[in-house]
Amino acid sequence: MQETPEPHEPPIYRRIADRLRTAILSGSLRDGDRLPGENALMAEYGIARATARQALAVLINEGLAVPKRGSGVYVRQFNPIRRHGSRRLARERWAQGRAIWDSDTRGRPYTVDEVRISREPAQADMTGVLGASEVWVRRRRYSVDGRPVQLAASFFPADLVEGSAITRPDTGPGGVYARLGDLGYAPATFTEEVRARMPLPDEAAMIGLPAGTPVIVIRRTAYAGGGVPVELNEMVLDSAAYVLQYDFDA
Amino acid sequence: MQETPEPHEPPIYRRIADRLRTAILSGSLRDGDRLPGENALMAEYGIARATARQALAVLINEGLAVPKRGSGVYVRQFNPIRRHGSRRLARERWAQGRAIWDSDTRGRPYTVDEVRISREPAQADMTGVLGASEVWVRRRRYSVDGRPVQLAASFFPADLVEGSAITRPDTGPGGVYARLGDLGYAPATFTEEVRARMPLPDEAAMIGLPAGTPVIVIRRTAYAGGGVPVELNEMVLDSAAYVLQYDFDA
Repeated sequence: MQETPEPHEPPIYRRIADRLRTAILSGSLRDGDRLPGENALMAEYGIARATARQALAVLINEGLAVPKRGSGVYVRQFNPIRRHGSRRLARERWAQGRAIWDSDTRGRPYTVDEVRISREPAQADMTGVLGASEVWVRRRRYSVDGRPVQLAASFFPADLVEGSAITRPDTGPGGVYARLGDLGYAPATFTEEVRARMPLPDEAAMIGLPAGTPVIVIRRTAYAGGGVPVELNEMVLDSAAYVLQYDFDA
Repeated sequence: MQETPEPHEPPIYRRIADRLRTAILSGSLRDGDRLPGENALMAEYGIARATARQALAVLINEGLAVPKRGSGVYVRQFNPIRRHGSRRLARERWAQGRAIWDSDTRGRPYTVDEVRISREPAQADMTGVLGASEVWVRRRRYSVDGRPVQLAASFFPADLVEGSAITRPDTGPGGVYARLGDLGYAPATFTEEVRARMPLPDEAAMIGLPAGTPVIVIRRTAYAGGGVPVELNEMVLDSAAYVLQYDFDA
């Protein structure tokens, strides 16, 4: 069947994608719902299989839908983690021995794995910020509800934290910030730089990202009193799993 | 020529992409440099054209490189705009009649076009936040150095701003926030919600996004004293053009 678009009208696969997108964004198709399959679209619109596939590919590429092998295309499950930029890092939290992640997940179960801790030469961009030639690095992966959502790598000036629990898997109550406090370098201010981009292959594999899902990259620097940088934390977040919230005054 | 990967070694196009990526991320290939072309890669690695193309496609998909029609593939120009979440919205700026965008661009020329201003029924998700059944909407597009970088749509409770310069193209010195101040509703606090996703077709066309470039979506609510919401601003940013910075205390 010949598909002749009206003048100025987008091609049929675009119009089908537009209709499905509207259904997703309006909520009439919801998290986890199955989209119409190729056969259903072919019958409904009188189009070829390749055209039906093209329509579904648009939504997959936009990150709104995700293919499951052998079972169809589904609305992307999105039960976002609300990551509250400042509140989660409030001193009273870690000073009381609470974990920062409890603030993010609000009771949803989370796990940390792929933990690797090592002392390494600082890379050029970190030497500039941390002013150290060697760093202790804590790399780990976070999962929420059993799904990997974030990779993080924290860098500390090696001489500052040598011998402390920061160099060991279990950092104790309140985590690394409480330990920096024990050392007389409690974080006083934070700067977060936020970017977004497509994942690198290693990141996509580690987080298990489906096609069409960018990552949010947060680079946070923690400063102790007097503006001394004490930690650099590079986080790579599944963008489909997160909303970042920042509150501030005019 | 047969390409037989070593056990556990990634395929050749991946290894070529890895080498080019390392060159880009380390800075030995820089903004605007041309990547080796298909012919050069074919000669250097003894591979087929399709394999060379696949290697370049990896970098394009990651947003690290961009194809220019008929002239090759180039390292993505990235001269980011540093958007300072809180400082740019400080009351002393707009109260003195300065434009928020002067803070972002620091002397780089910027333009605003595609300005559309209208009174509309509020959509369901906005009615909830702004508590208004009708809104004045200001839609516009920002370009920096001649390149579109952001779409923005600001929504105001219609009855609050009716008759003010907020409903006209030229909002006067200090812009909409100074005008809300004139009305007795100067913003006192802001909340920004940050997400990232692939662009919708309209957004990609309006911003002129190359393939493999996600957008950052910022939804900001401005609250006057007493927590009265006075503006909702939905911004769609070219992720390759922006670094968002947020500073806060522990």
